[in-house]
Amino acid sequence: MEQGDRSRVLLGVDPGFSITGYAILKKDGGKAYLLDYGFLKMSSQKSLVERVGIFFTCFEQKIVQLGVTEIALETSFLGKNAQTFLKLGYLRGILYLLASKHHLIVHEFAPREVKGAVTGYGAASKDQVAQMVLRLFPKLQTLGAIERQDVTDALAVCLCGFWKQ
Amino acid sequence: MEQGDRSRVLLGVDPGFSITGYAILKKDGGKAYLLDYGFLKMSSQKSLVERVGIFFTCFEQKIVQLGVTEIALETSFLGKNAQTFLKLGYLRGILYLLASKHHLIVHEFAPREVKGAVTGYGAASKDQVAQMVLRLFPKLQTLGAIERQDVTDALAVCLCGFWKQ
Repeated sequence: MEQGDRSRVLLGVDPGFSITGYAILKKDGGKAYLLDYGFLKMSSQKSLVERVGIFFTCFEQKIVQLGVTEIALETSFLGKNAQTFLKLGYLRGILYLLASKHHLIVHEFAPREVKGAVTGYGAASKDQVAQMVLRLFPKLQTLGAIERQDVTDALAVCLCGFWKQ
Repeated sequence: MEQGDRSRVLLGVDPGFSITGYAILKKDGGKAYLLDYGFLKMSSQKSLVERVGIFFTCFEQKIVQLGVTEIALETSFLGKNAQTFLKLGYLRGILYLLASKHHLIVHEFAPREVKGAVTGYGAASKDQVAQMVLRLFPKLQTLGAIERQDVTDALAVCLCGFWKQ
């Protein structure tokens, strides 16, 4: 069965060792349904090994339960801390492994592409992206301010994957 | 059962997307036995998703078959290419996941520590490290020159984990 023959289920992830935002959209015909969204918080009290294990288990469950067919990620760029950047790679590697294990397509988009897809303007601010995502999915308003940013970022990259194909 | 009660089996890995060197040492009493060593080559023709999957399967098989109890890795430092560094994180993340899944201890050593443990001199050259490792395990001489470097690096970090505890 070709990918195009069945409905697409996209998992958008904004990975991080403290908070990972995620959103899962289902595309059926031309319509999008938000199947799930939220965030995974991992205590820094836990070892890196434990956190990597928790991250894997959390997203493997979602992929299996909701029949995810694609993963959408934003390309990472080196920030101030090279070791934080490397460790972000650990989580991205786990998502790639899940893609391999469950035969998912992986999309990577540059931040410009995501901003452009969501707001129509590639140099939009993070806030403008969040506002547009909240206009499309008003129920995200109920999230706390800190976590909301991670979820809207994940949903933005998910929407980008949704619209780009 | 405590870790100290059984014999230790250490997997030393020098991960890389083109060649990954590895070595597996078993500690029984005061003696070390080289159970396995070699390298994993992954074609750049394969997608990142495929290569991450191959890497996971290769090392999971070795861990299970040889009863690995610990993983030893050298700390990575940012080189010239940030995206290569990030992708190295993908492979390290897979090793952390394997540690979580199979209850392995992970050791990370700075290059200085590895060099110091193997040659007695923290600022030793890569060549000096390789020469010392080859003196301890002469059968590695049979490897091709390019792969040998990756295997001696992996065995050096493995020896470091072996001696440090």
